[in-house]
Amino acid sequence: MRFTIAKAKFEKALNIASHAIGSRSANPLLMCFKLEVSAKGLEITSSNNDISIWTLIPIEENGGENIRSVIPGATLLDAKILSEIVHKFEGNEVSVDVVDDAIAKIDDGRAVFKLNCVKAEEYPDIDMERSGNSFTLDSAGLIQLVDQTAFAALDKDTRPILTAINLKAEAGKLIATATDSARLSRKSTEVDSTLRFIANIPAKTLEDIVKLLDGVKSVEISASSEKAVFSFANTLISCRLIAGEYPVSNSIIPQNFSYFLEVNSQQLLNAVDRASILSTDRAPVVKLTMSEEKVEISSSSDQNGSAAEQLTTLQYSGERLEIAFNASFVSQAVRALGSEDVTMSFLGEMKPFVIKNPKDDSIVELITPMRTR
Amino acid sequence: MRFTIAKAKFEKALNIASHAIGSRSANPLLMCFKLEVSAKGLEITSSNNDISIWTLIPIEENGGENIRSVIPGATLLDAKILSEIVHKFEGNEVSVDVVDDAIAKIDDGRAVFKLNCVKAEEYPDIDMERSGNSFTLDSAGLIQLVDQTAFAALDKDTRPILTAINLKAEAGKLIATATDSARLSRKSTEVDSTLRFIANIPAKTLEDIVKLLDGVKSVEISASSEKAVFSFANTLISCRLIAGEYPVSNSIIPQNFSYFLEVNSQQLLNAVDRASILSTDRAPVVKLTMSEEKVEISSSSDQNGSAAEQLTTLQYSGERLEIAFNASFVSQAVRALGSEDVTMSFLGEMKPFVIKNPKDDSIVELITPMRTR
Repeated sequence: MRFTIAKAKFEKALNIASHAIGSRSANPLLMCFKLEVSAKGLEITSSNNDISIWTLIPIEENGGENIRSVIPGATLLDAKILSEIVHKFEGNEVSVDVVDDAIAKIDDGRAVFKLNCVKAEEYPDIDMERSGNSFTLDSAGLIQLVDQTAFAALDKDTRPILTAINLKAEAGKLIATATDSARLSRKSTEVDSTLRFIANIPAKTLEDIVKLLDGVKSVEISASSEKAVFSFANTLISCRLIAGEYPVSNSIIPQNFSYFLEVNSQQLLNAVDRASILSTDRAPVVKLTMSEEKVEISSSSDQNGSAAEQLTTLQYSGERLEIAFNASFVSQAVRALGSEDVTMSFLGEMKPFVIKNPKDDSIVELITPMRTR
Repeated sequence: MRFTIAKAKFEKALNIASHAIGSRSANPLLMCFKLEVSAKGLEITSSNNDISIWTLIPIEENGGENIRSVIPGATLLDAKILSEIVHKFEGNEVSVDVVDDAIAKIDDGRAVFKLNCVKAEEYPDIDMERSGNSFTLDSAGLIQLVDQTAFAALDKDTRPILTAINLKAEAGKLIATATDSARLSRKSTEVDSTLRFIANIPAKTLEDIVKLLDGVKSVEISASSEKAVFSFANTLISCRLIAGEYPVSNSIIPQNFSYFLEVNSQQLLNAVDRASILSTDRAPVVKLTMSEEKVEISSSSDQNGSAAEQLTTLQYSGERLEIAFNASFVSQAVRALGSEDVTMSFLGEMKPFVIKNPKDDSIVELITPMRTR
């Protein structure tokens, strides 16, 4: 096996594949990349418990040559070391030459590395086959779905189903929902009205996948009952799904409210951030006190003291209401909306409340209040 | 006690004083700033086991007013919380108003904090008095002395004296020396020929102090047998010295060599960095093999394989020599020199070698080789 490859292309592909390399694995072979070169080009495969990645660098692309001097073959090479070597090479081309299935000579015309390698046959079988329903989404749309919901998923494994983003397509809408049971974020986007699709994809995996979509136009997503496959730009990413029914119905979001507030997003964020300073807790509690006369953010701590400041109210309707919440839940929700102003709708002191962008109905944030002392 | 102060000045002074606030202290009062306002201005004091800081914001400065509405007095306020509040304030002025020695009201005209505070009388006495020999150095000179030596000091407390930078003035030279006993860095600068001065100042403290010299022209340094005081721009920093005699003589650096190499610094750094990739050790060992024909950097690891590359030699004189060293010692030394090319002078395989900037005799790096396998 041997080939000479454009360094920039090789580095980029290794970078993509390295997203499926963990910091350690029970199976040391999974700390390796599988490299296979043929008339098709160079295929790089990587896998860990959560995701598997396959990416191809074609021999030629857009009339230019990526790879030359090919002798077909395959090998396994330590992923971290190969990535670092190629990253630190200064030459424009990298040659890989495997001798006796045991040593890979890697050089850029200046430095020469001789790496111990493993026979490709020892690598486990990785199933990258696409099956089940599939649809294509523009990358920007997928990135937004993930960015605006993933933060609300559960970040520990106490209830595995809640570590997922629930992706569901029906009646012309693709809806992404994430919740840790104390707050929920839901974003929808329009899709073909005939599409039926449902999958619980780990939020962390989705966050990792969208990082790879830089410069990619669209992504095809296929899901069977056990796995989803993302396909784009000579790359396939397969990830396991989380089994079980997602415990959130479409009707969880209340529709009629008794109190309604509209404020500037940045002012709300700054006030909540300042009021959080006094907390000695990892989840700072901040209080919002509203009336037609004034709207105030406040907090207090036995140890440190108290803080209060008024918000400029764009609009408030309702009786006087006092509600306390986890400051970072509100901050993350307001940031996810990304709008100049936000509306907050309440049913009462201990009822979940809704934060929205007044100009965009496709995203909604639901937060359960905390008990005030 | 009360005052109203320009936010930017207050924030900058708190930032300086916060360098003497540890992450925790056996004495909770040392987690506080002492604030004292009088006709002089606002004095902020902070202290931990290693250093104490006193800084003054004068009432007026360069014809502008820093502080107004003063009622003299003093108080102790939680350092982290006060710093964060002032940092996150959006107003241009901050008012501090202490009521009954128990509550400090802090506001920027928008948000109001009421912080629990402690009587100033409870703060320990901090000795900021300057004594012993003193001299003035331009800040750039002090920053260079520290930047070019501190990295070579011992970073653990196994031999306290070696955690210091030894500053010694005699015969018209101020010499800074740091060593962890496996390598040494020494930088000298010219001073008044009558100056006699010697002090072992913790390297970490010096690194922290030079961070505060942004925009400062010159620094006065005084040292008695137990402490050094740095004085600049309305600020005093006092730090404890490390007792004992510094175990390095002026004559430790060899003067006559049998082998001499000159190479480009960046090329050497890149080659050493690449050769370090294969190491599974925290202190990667790299080998330099020199002869008049070629100069090569190489490394090998039973687990991963081997690496080798040639350096473009600007000059080599001597027999064939093979020498192994801790890669990061050489990288740090070459970076500290900051020159385009470096010279390396050797006495033999197991003798300490010297790295220098061929155009600057004021800095010298000495490194003990490692045994090759």
